[in-house]
Amino acid sequence: MYNGKKISLAVIRRLPRYYRYLSDLIISGAKRISSKELSERMGITASQIRQDLNCFGGFGQQGYGYNIESLFAEIANILGVNKKFNTIIIGAGNMGQALANYENFVKRGFNLSGIFDVDPELFGKRIKDIVIMDYNKIEEFFRLNQVDIAILTIPYEYTREIADKVARLGVRGIWNFSPMDLKLPYDVEIENVHLSDSLMVLGYKLSSRGNR
Amino acid sequence: MYNGKKISLAVIRRLPRYYRYLSDLIISGAKRISSKELSERMGITASQIRQDLNCFGGFGQQGYGYNIESLFAEIANILGVNKKFNTIIIGAGNMGQALANYENFVKRGFNLSGIFDVDPELFGKRIKDIVIMDYNKIEEFFRLNQVDIAILTIPYEYTREIADKVARLGVRGIWNFSPMDLKLPYDVEIENVHLSDSLMVLGYKLSSRGNR
Repeated sequence: MYNGKKISLAVIRRLPRYYRYLSDLIISGAKRISSKELSERMGITASQIRQDLNCFGGFGQQGYGYNIESLFAEIANILGVNKKFNTIIIGAGNMGQALANYENFVKRGFNLSGIFDVDPELFGKRIKDIVIMDYNKIEEFFRLNQVDIAILTIPYEYTREIADKVARLGVRGIWNFSPMDLKLPYDVEIENVHLSDSLMVLGYKLSSRGNR
Repeated sequence: MYNGKKISLAVIRRLPRYYRYLSDLIISGAKRISSKELSERMGITASQIRQDLNCFGGFGQQGYGYNIESLFAEIANILGVNKKFNTIIIGAGNMGQALANYENFVKRGFNLSGIFDVDPELFGKRIKDIVIMDYNKIEEFFRLNQVDIAILTIPYEYTREIADKVARLGVRGIWNFSPMDLKLPYDVEIENVHLSDSLMVLGYKLSSRGNR
């Protein structure tokens, strides 16, 4: 059982992946899995898996493998998947609208409560049930609503200013899609998404194996 | 100098990040940096940095740090940033359009040469200079054009079928945005993007520090 011991962020970053694989295994009806089988499915070494999962307790029994449901429940618990977060999106362009439509979102406990933009043509338009609102009225929105997380899908040049504003208005976390490693002088957790990093890895895989 | 030795994918996955930080440093006019300074900027331990960069040669000199330009050039070379890849997007919904507008794309050597969808209302519409085409004519497109990479921004249920098709048509890499760990029985490199993984890490950061 997870004893509250601090787990390194490198391990935490791998947990959503375990979470997805274990979720698929539960749906398939499996009960137990060895680190070797999990390793083959996930493309992570078995010793890495044992090391990762040992960080939060000893679910694996030699020769019996891991109990999938317990492991899944524990990872969900560590990740805080059962928690709910009120979330807003700032920037109702293509990326903002794509995220607003993203189904895994709500499944993971992120309740979308507002979408903001500066383009008057978008005001009043709905994405799913959420209406796009005027960014200039965001302070009012914060007075009336608790907001935990702001998702920023805005042009690079506005990111720092708007991040600063929502931080001062009281968000606890920012999910930033601008190609910038955003840092703020406030007590706000930030996850910077760098889409092109993953594309560069793909480019590496292609160029390292040469042309066919 | 990089001697062609195989570098682990875990290290490769960190290289785009070094690439971004070093690029910023070059713009700022810096010439050399110690692993300690780089560590503070990037939030990676200095020993991890030394270990990573040692994988492809010894640029760092004790007491002098790393030569930023050489290191940057070497990482760009390993990542194959100077290579060009002909890229298409399948799925011209919000995510597809967001990616088509993504500036870092072309900068990193990914030339967008076509966008495909099944919605006739989108056919002929342009995103930047690229016209949206009928997915049902994709075979013709492949006969006339070399395509290295297909970006899939399509609903989950069509992903396997369409990935299979472009693989048979000859793409060398797939960048997959469906929430699925796509695997194919072909010699095709795949990068699966799981946006919600990063959101779950943000959720963890918020729940692990408790409510304020």
